[in-house]
Amino acid sequence: MTDTGSPSPSRRSLLGWGGAGLALGAAAAGGAAAMARTEDGTEPAGSAIAFHGPHQAGIATPVQDRLHFAAFDVTTDDRDAFVQLLKDWTAAARRMTAGHTVGEGAYGGLAEAPPDDTGEALGLKPSRLTLTIGFGPSLFEKFDLTDHRPEALADLPKFAGDNLDKNRSGGDLCVQACADDPQVAVHAVRNLARIGFGKVVIRWSQLGFGKTSSTTPEAQTPRNLMGFKDGTRNIAGTEPDRLKKFVWVDEKDGPRWMEGGSYLVARRIRMHIETWDRTSLQEQEDIFGRDKGEGAPVGKAKERDEPFLKAMKPDAHVRLAHPDTNHGATILRRGYSFTDGTDGLGRLDAGLFFLAYQRDVRKGFIPIQRSLAADALNEYIQHVGSALFAIPPGVRDQDDWWGRTLFSEEA
Amino acid sequence: MTDTGSPSPSRRSLLGWGGAGLALGAAAAGGAAAMARTEDGTEPAGSAIAFHGPHQAGIATPVQDRLHFAAFDVTTDDRDAFVQLLKDWTAAARRMTAGHTVGEGAYGGLAEAPPDDTGEALGLKPSRLTLTIGFGPSLFEKFDLTDHRPEALADLPKFAGDNLDKNRSGGDLCVQACADDPQVAVHAVRNLARIGFGKVVIRWSQLGFGKTSSTTPEAQTPRNLMGFKDGTRNIAGTEPDRLKKFVWVDEKDGPRWMEGGSYLVARRIRMHIETWDRTSLQEQEDIFGRDKGEGAPVGKAKERDEPFLKAMKPDAHVRLAHPDTNHGATILRRGYSFTDGTDGLGRLDAGLFFLAYQRDVRKGFIPIQRSLAADALNEYIQHVGSALFAIPPGVRDQDDWWGRTLFSEEA
Repeated sequence: MTDTGSPSPSRRSLLGWGGAGLALGAAAAGGAAAMARTEDGTEPAGSAIAFHGPHQAGIATPVQDRLHFAAFDVTTDDRDAFVQLLKDWTAAARRMTAGHTVGEGAYGGLAEAPPDDTGEALGLKPSRLTLTIGFGPSLFEKFDLTDHRPEALADLPKFAGDNLDKNRSGGDLCVQACADDPQVAVHAVRNLARIGFGKVVIRWSQLGFGKTSSTTPEAQTPRNLMGFKDGTRNIAGTEPDRLKKFVWVDEKDGPRWMEGGSYLVARRIRMHIETWDRTSLQEQEDIFGRDKGEGAPVGKAKERDEPFLKAMKPDAHVRLAHPDTNHGATILRRGYSFTDGTDGLGRLDAGLFFLAYQRDVRKGFIPIQRSLAADALNEYIQHVGSALFAIPPGVRDQDDWWGRTLFSEEA
Repeated sequence: MTDTGSPSPSRRSLLGWGGAGLALGAAAAGGAAAMARTEDGTEPAGSAIAFHGPHQAGIATPVQDRLHFAAFDVTTDDRDAFVQLLKDWTAAARRMTAGHTVGEGAYGGLAEAPPDDTGEALGLKPSRLTLTIGFGPSLFEKFDLTDHRPEALADLPKFAGDNLDKNRSGGDLCVQACADDPQVAVHAVRNLARIGFGKVVIRWSQLGFGKTSSTTPEAQTPRNLMGFKDGTRNIAGTEPDRLKKFVWVDEKDGPRWMEGGSYLVARRIRMHIETWDRTSLQEQEDIFGRDKGEGAPVGKAKERDEPFLKAMKPDAHVRLAHPDTNHGATILRRGYSFTDGTDGLGRLDAGLFFLAYQRDVRKGFIPIQRSLAADALNEYIQHVGSALFAIPPGVRDQDDWWGRTLFSEEA
């Protein structure tokens, strides 16, 4: 991550030119602090994902290795202040995803003021950082926007086996930060939280250390903490037809402000891995409906072979989650494994942080999760957190900002 | 990570040869399960760190990117059973650090039995995994070994500002898993915990997402979550004289069973990052005694320039932690940044998981931490977890095992 724009000299260059004596060093620092920095610097090293576009990045984008997900509650009832925050967040997100620091950087402002950027990502590459914002159902209540709440953002029913912790559920807003370097993802969420001080507060957050899904068809399907490949036939970023059909809100769906957006269901799924680990290989494979080594569906040789559902047990996970069992319901998955230390009983607090994107929650997650009520896997997992967000369309250009279609046009 | 040794055919190869019909697939699986697998397979792709040696790997080894650290309590009082566990753990650690699965693998055993390996690291590289074991003071009580407890494993006093949570402190044993891929580190700790079922239980564990120290002198010093470089003059793996002087227990130190070993102090240090982030750049730099951009000590131009301590404020962190302030006391640091979600007040539960290795705790961490009682940084940090372990010498060869010098020779 670059702190300063070129061709402005960096603070260190100034010190180098001026000599490095103690008093002179301090004076030079003051001089550097007063210099303006360009908004966008030179192209940073490493890979950056484009921030602007019709859809937000971080959905169809090839899945990055690490996640930091944060749900926020809005603490201000000043709509103008909130809109300004959305604009400030957009500006910061635009810079961070390009590999730059926030604002004047970690050591580029006035010495008497807190730096604009917290600094721990200095020197790190952009790391394919994406930042994706979402609006929770409760946000529509806060700013008298209930008329604008999409019907497709349907409240989730209580599902069989749910054991939801409200401290890990809900939220007025969310930010999904994905990157190949976790320090880059954590830095981004932290700096957005900091910019939001006095207007929003983090309600809960979740670190994901390993991706469990791929949106790149040629890539290896990663394994979850049960040791299985799951979600083989995920929607790929290279499948425009399936994205259009299952993920992106279009002009016929309404409301207009959501065109190009999507809906996100986030579920924290605790795995009872100690119990799972004492289960026989045969039972594990029966439960998933795949073999463990290759990941092939029952009776097939290769992971990507079309599953023959009737060869599986009636309560097999693949069978119950398959579109054919659910009138074609299909979601785009971007889940991550988590391990959050240990519970009071010496068991790892580990599992899957499940992120599902869809064009309409009523036709995506809800029917699939209802079908999974019979899932043999339920003996080994429990849903302990749940949240739901409308994901507005992408930021089109330098003048656009997150949520403009909702807060400015009120389409 | 490879599941099977070559040239034994893998289960999938057998299925390929035999046809992939459902009934035949099941029969072939049984056949594959009955085949012996070689203990060590072909050289796995990617980089593996040697497990055998006079010292345990994971101390002077170049610091890997990610950490999973677990403290265990022993629940058996059967000494023979515990010794068997140490042997079983050694065998598993030898395989996992080489990039292999535990035992017969994730799908290589009997279909009717739970697999020997949990499987989520299949297909991943060795990722420079190191596994380092330690024995806590309480272990010496458990097995009537109090005569063998080293004096250098001195109980830590209560330090100024300590606010220790006993659920994040202590432990009869520890395992430090470091790897460049967090899934590989988590997999290793989980599989050791699984092998220990009924004999040990995880007391607490900590994931570290970003290293904050380097033991490679030419490498960039990573930044902590305060945005600063710290520990610039860390002991490097390429400095045998400093390792000998400050890290490794030698024959003069005693007890004999610790020769080639070391001592580890682990501290969970919560950072009040929201408060820190509202502090001016000048104050941040005064507190550390370095500038934020380059990391140079006060009045110097480059990070690695020798600090002039008297140019710093009397309560500057670098000044108080420096060997010159502490009669030469020096530790080897391998700390990691952590972020464990959010506390009840909407603040990130984030900070530094500090790991310090030394030849004698009385001459390493204790005097340095006493000196840091005056540290200006204390306004922004709090030590909330603490543990102490004797790190036995390395496993010499295929027949050796973790802790043999203590449990077999009773030197």
